[in-house]
Amino acid sequence: MVEAVESEQEQNEPQYKEYAIEEFLVRSEPYYRPVSDELELFTAAYNQHIPVLLKGPTGCGKTRFVEYMAWKLGRPMVTIACHEDLTASDLVGRYLLDSDGTRWIDGPMTRAVKTGAILYLDEIVEARKDTTVLIHPLTDHRRILPVEKTGQIIEADDRFLLCISYNPHYQSALKDLKHSTRQRFISVEFDYPPADIEAEIVQKESGCTEEQASALAKLGEKVRNLRDHGLAEGASTRLLIYAGRLMREGIPARRACQVAIVWTLTDEAELQRSVEEVVSSIFE
Amino acid sequence: MVEAVESEQEQNEPQYKEYAIEEFLVRSEPYYRPVSDELELFTAAYNQHIPVLLKGPTGCGKTRFVEYMAWKLGRPMVTIACHEDLTASDLVGRYLLDSDGTRWIDGPMTRAVKTGAILYLDEIVEARKDTTVLIHPLTDHRRILPVEKTGQIIEADDRFLLCISYNPHYQSALKDLKHSTRQRFISVEFDYPPADIEAEIVQKESGCTEEQASALAKLGEKVRNLRDHGLAEGASTRLLIYAGRLMREGIPARRACQVAIVWTLTDEAELQRSVEEVVSSIFE
Amino acid sequence: MVEAVESEQEQNEPQYKEYAIEEFLVRSEPYYRPVSDELELFTAAYNQHIPVLLKGPTGCGKTRFVEYMAWKLGRPMVTIACHEDLTASDLVGRYLLDSDGTRWIDGPMTRAVKTGAILYLDEIVEARKDTTVLIHPLTDHRRILPVEKTGQIIEADDRFLLCISYNPHYQSALKDLKHSTRQRFISVEFDYPPADIEAEIVQKESGCTEEQASALAKLGEKVRNLRDHGLAEGASTRLLIYAGRLMREGIPARRACQVAIVWTLTDEAELQRSVEEVVSSIFE
Amino acid sequence: MVEAVESEQEQNEPQYKEYAIEEFLVRSEPYYRPVSDELELFTAAYNQHIPVLLKGPTGCGKTRFVEYMAWKLGRPMVTIACHEDLTASDLVGRYLLDSDGTRWIDGPMTRAVKTGAILYLDEIVEARKDTTVLIHPLTDHRRILPVEKTGQIIEADDRFLLCISYNPHYQSALKDLKHSTRQRFISVEFDYPPADIEAEIVQKESGCTEEQASALAKLGEKVRNLRDHGLAEGASTRLLIYAGRLMREGIPARRACQVAIVWTLTDEAELQRSVEEVVSSIFE
Amino acid sequence: MVEAVESEQEQNEPQYKEYAIEEFLVRSEPYYRPVSDELELFTAAYNQHIPVLLKGPTGCGKTRFVEYMAWKLGRPMVTIACHEDLTASDLVGRYLLDSDGTRWIDGPMTRAVKTGAILYLDEIVEARKDTTVLIHPLTDHRRILPVEKTGQIIEADDRFLLCISYNPHYQSALKDLKHSTRQRFISVEFDYPPADIEAEIVQKESGCTEEQASALAKLGEKVRNLRDHGLAEGASTRLLIYAGRLMREGIPARRACQVAIVWTLTDEAELQRSVEEVVSSIFE
Amino acid sequence: MVEAVESEQEQNEPQYKEYAIEEFLVRSEPYYRPVSDELELFTAAYNQHIPVLLKGPTGCGKTRFVEYMAWKLGRPMVTIACHEDLTASDLVGRYLLDSDGTRWIDGPMTRAVKTGAILYLDEIVEARKDTTVLIHPLTDHRRILPVEKTGQIIEADDRFLLCISYNPHYQSALKDLKHSTRQRFISVEFDYPPADIEAEIVQKESGCTEEQASALAKLGEKVRNLRDHGLAEGASTRLLIYAGRLMREGIPARRACQVAIVWTLTDEAELQRSVEEVVSSIFE
Repeated sequence: MVEAVESEQEQNEPQYKEYAIEEFLVRSEPYYRPVSDELELFTAAYNQHIPVLLKGPTGCGKTRFVEYMAWKLGRPMVTIACHEDLTASDLVGRYLLDSDGTRWIDGPMTRAVKTGAILYLDEIVEARKDTTVLIHPLTDHRRILPVEKTGQIIEADDRFLLCISYNPHYQSALKDLKHSTRQRFISVEFDYPPADIEAEIVQKESGCTEEQASALAKLGEKVRNLRDHGLAEGASTRLLIYAGRLMREGIPARRACQVAIVWTLTDEAELQRSVEEVVSSIFE
Repeated sequence: MVEAVESEQEQNEPQYKEYAIEEFLVRSEPYYRPVSDELELFTAAYNQHIPVLLKGPTGCGKTRFVEYMAWKLGRPMVTIACHEDLTASDLVGRYLLDSDGTRWIDGPMTRAVKTGAILYLDEIVEARKDTTVLIHPLTDHRRILPVEKTGQIIEADDRFLLCISYNPHYQSALKDLKHSTRQRFISVEFDYPPADIEAEIVQKESGCTEEQASALAKLGEKVRNLRDHGLAEGASTRLLIYAGRLMREGIPARRACQVAIVWTLTDEAELQRSVEEVVSSIFE
Repeated sequence: MVEAVESEQEQNEPQYKEYAIEEFLVRSEPYYRPVSDELELFTAAYNQHIPVLLKGPTGCGKTRFVEYMAWKLGRPMVTIACHEDLTASDLVGRYLLDSDGTRWIDGPMTRAVKTGAILYLDEIVEARKDTTVLIHPLTDHRRILPVEKTGQIIEADDRFLLCISYNPHYQSALKDLKHSTRQRFISVEFDYPPADIEAEIVQKESGCTEEQASALAKLGEKVRNLRDHGLAEGASTRLLIYAGRLMREGIPARRACQVAIVWTLTDEAELQRSVEEVVSSIFE
Repeated sequence: MVEAVESEQEQNEPQYKEYAIEEFLVRSEPYYRPVSDELELFTAAYNQHIPVLLKGPTGCGKTRFVEYMAWKLGRPMVTIACHEDLTASDLVGRYLLDSDGTRWIDGPMTRAVKTGAILYLDEIVEARKDTTVLIHPLTDHRRILPVEKTGQIIEADDRFLLCISYNPHYQSALKDLKHSTRQRFISVEFDYPPADIEAEIVQKESGCTEEQASALAKLGEKVRNLRDHGLAEGASTRLLIYAGRLMREGIPARRACQVAIVWTLTDEAELQRSVEEVVSSIFE
Repeated sequence: MVEAVESEQEQNEPQYKEYAIEEFLVRSEPYYRPVSDELELFTAAYNQHIPVLLKGPTGCGKTRFVEYMAWKLGRPMVTIACHEDLTASDLVGRYLLDSDGTRWIDGPMTRAVKTGAILYLDEIVEARKDTTVLIHPLTDHRRILPVEKTGQIIEADDRFLLCISYNPHYQSALKDLKHSTRQRFISVEFDYPPADIEAEIVQKESGCTEEQASALAKLGEKVRNLRDHGLAEGASTRLLIYAGRLMREGIPARRACQVAIVWTLTDEAELQRSVEEVVSSIFE
Repeated sequence: MVEAVESEQEQNEPQYKEYAIEEFLVRSEPYYRPVSDELELFTAAYNQHIPVLLKGPTGCGKTRFVEYMAWKLGRPMVTIACHEDLTASDLVGRYLLDSDGTRWIDGPMTRAVKTGAILYLDEIVEARKDTTVLIHPLTDHRRILPVEKTGQIIEADDRFLLCISYNPHYQSALKDLKHSTRQRFISVEFDYPPADIEAEIVQKESGCTEEQASALAKLGEKVRNLRDHGLAEGASTRLLIYAGRLMREGIPARRACQVAIVWTLTDEAELQRSVEEVVSSIFE
């Protein structure tokens, strides 16, 4: 790796890329392995202007699925990770001062509405009330976004679709999606893929051997069963891929599983031992 | 659907529409199916300058009713979804910086007061105290809006009417409408329409067959009865329409009901099974 | 009513009126029916520069009384509805940016102090501490308003009087008027008027028949007695007037009472039935 | 009083006065009736640069005392009523935008420090932590005010003195003066004056007869004894003066006591009856 | 004292002084009476770039000690009293608007870091998390201050030292110094000085007689023992000095102790009596 | 030390250094003593674009390790100490006013993403939700940073790596890393080094004698065992180094340990005695 280091000057030349949010077209087909009729359901909803809610655990592929659909439908994809400090202004837009006074800048939600993008609000239950309420007029027959600060109403581009997601395991009484919001969507439930499909995904994404991928998929399945024994959440497909990639870099299998899976899943010594035992039973 | 995708350039041409909020006239008659004497009550209140409060569950048609009355009375309709982060400034207006100093921009409430619109505050109990209090001088004999930031008082256009709504099921001790607010309105209670009228609505709005619409209306009725068995809220008319539209796109009836109704109404496996049983009993 | 609708262009011509807050003189004598010696008490307090606190239930006529006194004393009336988001700056004033830098804009309290208005703070217990404290130097022998942001002190016009109100029924331990504030006022207690006077008011304000007005006043009296049976608050005179006005528009008496009184007073089915029984006993 | 009303034009001419805060010199000797050695104590503290804390109930004359001392010492008096929304910037100063950029405006505390005023912080326990902490370097041997926003330190004028007050009855565990603040002051305890002195004060301030003043002072004494029977706080001298002034305007004695004292002290019917009995026993 | 009052004009000429915060050099040797090896410890820490934490009760001389060390080391001293409303911007700096746009103004912490001052954060546990975290990179081997708003990193002047203090008696579970902060300092514990040294300090600082000073030191010792009998905190050396200074102004000893010590230490009548008894036993 | 003091003028010449945050290259090899295969793990993760989470107690060397890796990989290191008042704007950037209107300033996170730095978020669990969520799109296959305020998306430089840390001992139910965040990292657990390696580190960093260093390492080990006897946290390697450096300045060993370790670890007298006993047993 030391060899790969360039001269100091070259190193400091910026090598990043910048896009306008609404130009973020998924240009090449993302790798997505369908499990059921989810492609048909999403397409029907898109044609009928019905907003879509995706439910499922951490790292089971919800984001990748929306990305795949955006590519398939040829629409830009605008993703917003919801959290309690995200304001309506962050989404809709704000006035900026200019040499000629104030200038209005559209926020990402406004950009998505105007360009007819797939707007994906990730972990919607983390959003503040003003964000949640913003989507109401966008999700009934009006399909409008009122922009109170400019005194305008925007009727969405015909190709616009709103898609939201959340993880039902995190749901608490305090942070629940109100029915007045919920009943504006059809709902599709996701879960981790079955072991044979997951092995295919792990192998493709990590570049590890087929045998390693199968072992990792089996490990994922067994660790998820530990959820009934105190583990808060099972290993996501992403963690299995991380383990595969570390193995490809020459890290021994059990050490790779320890840092990618065991230590990531929990801080408690006893639970760590339970997961390690599963690892040992597979990678002897 | 893939065939409908235009060339990339065409796709990115904006196809949205923009209006000033107070110009949002309902231009063509909205579909509204009256259930009782609600048209007469609203018209009498409008003539007498009496503000109107609409009570009822999620998605039973309150917003559509106000829209219909705005069309019938020939007034613009200004809708504001209330939430705890909506400030008085968002409603009344604010100063913006300009090349010539500050400029005042009327908020949507001020615009409604000035143009004599139907001002509809949706889910009023979610509003902050300053919003709730703003409507007091607008709802007594004075019909004025004090704009403290400009030091002015606006007497409403004679055709202005204030209309608010809320869902009594959400009411908690913390979020209740104070009597000093409540006793400024007459109150009209709404509920889901009877099965024959609901079937008519579902068929008209989804384009599904009459037979499917009748089955969906029956399903709605039965699912609402499950509210006594742990379901927080019944299926709204909107969800029945979604199911009808998915069927029209070729999704099998039971799958359509699963994603539009079962998975939308609840995350709990047992409750989902109860709803599924109702679905199976209707769509065998 | 449809006949009354003007051409679309005419409809959109603004028909509202605007005043500066401190110019809101009550120009014609408001209808006010005294119940006791309240006129003499208020006049004595005004002559002696003693601030006045009005206590009483929702809609019993406190605001109308102050309006009447402002008319009688020939002073402008500045009304401020207190709430927890009203800042000292909203009341006292703020700096605005201008092409020549910042410009100071007096708030409504400062305007009232300078023009010698009757300043009416409605529901004072809802105010934040900074608002409550602002009135301290205005209500002792100094009669001054310190404006910290401009570094100035304003001595009130000799004809200035501060008047505040609250509803003792809402009082909780958390939201109480501190004695250091309370003991700066004399206090006048208000209640609903006796039945004969209330009938006179309802008839005059709604334009209904004398017989209807008497029946409504009797209804008001009976419903207020239900307060001992679980009803949070009785029907205000305003609600009786609403019912009278709906009757005048041709709505049948019992339906008018249902939407103006029964459904407005409570959401609970059982309590609604109790009130309906009272209605039925009067309007058979 | 109606006769005293001027023509409308005259009425609207401003008749208020404005001063810079630090020019608020008490120009004529305020009426103050010493009770003990408080004048000597304050003068000694002033000479020795020792900050002074005044403790005592509502309306017992703390503010008047400081005003008297400011007059006697020939210093301007800057009063700040503390509350939880008062920021350090409100007190120390802030930058304002100007046509030439930002301009610094001293706050009232900075003005007091620079002109050597008596700075009086009323109800200090209501202040936020940043206000409380601001006074620390002003109250030890350094006598400095650090102005963090301008990056400066101001050494107080030699004649500057800080004086604070609070009412120990309001003290709760949450709102207590920390010892690190408290131990920067000497403390003088105040109480209501004895009956003969209070009668003298009431007569002088209200203009009522000597007999009425004696009766009111006796009333004050008796009502304060009710504090052991559920009354939160006794009647302040100020309320007795209000009653005297209403009597002077021709309001009958018992009615005057009712509105100035009974209804002001409490909202509870039973406690009101107890106080009324005391009133009746004195004004038969 | 009346004689000392100047003509009104002279009085209003400003007599204060202003310094830049980082120029606040302690120019003349402050009076400091060492109790143990604290001078050696601080000097060793200064030479080794080890940050210093001072623990001890209210008014025992921590601030004076740091001032003395700043004088001895010839460094400017920048003091910041921590509180929960002090923001990182208040400490590090902020942008101000200028006629040419924004201008950056260094905050007191940045000034201290750049000029190599002794930076003294008083009552660090009162600070918000962002203040506490700011000092982390300043207190490890990096000795840097990241200024996120300008995108810069400042390496401290070699003579910079950070010193913080707190009073362990105030410590609650909620407001504790985290170990990740705490373990960046060596810690020196302070207490009130022994009686003979305290008498020396009281006499020197108040100008009272030696006999009075001895009596006051004895009083201090005895009152501190009352802490086991309900008194929250003992009398600080500062309060003893206040009593001595009042005596010097001619106030009788017991009265001086009452206002400087008894009434300052507590509001509770019974505890006041206990302290008064101690006063009486010493000043008969 | 007094001799080392320069003339006042020289003293006040600034001797600090300033860098742009993204230019903070670690120019000389930092002293880092590896304990296990942590170098290989980090390098593999860097090559595979896998984000890294470091877990471990206070002062065990996590920050130093990242610094070492940044030097080894030849990348700039951008460190951000997380806390609950750090906003997304502080990290991503903000608009500033300029003579030509607003200008955008990249925050430290944006700078790190653009220059391909090692971005180190220290104590991530202290961060607000908006900070935590910001890193989601940076840590999956997209490696993008959406900048909502400018409406842009930045694809990270290929050499960018995100690294975060936390101390599992501080973890409470309230402040836990959500699995949707956690499962985006591999995790490496750190602990204090074994006694022989720690002695080597203490000697090298403090300049004390080898014998002193061995004694201090032994002390560290024994004190950490007291954690089972009520001590919240053991002594960090840093505190041992502090003690060594004080000894080098001539402070006696036991006094050096008292101020560097005993008084720093706890305020409770009894626990202090336990630690002192351990000190006495080693430094007799």
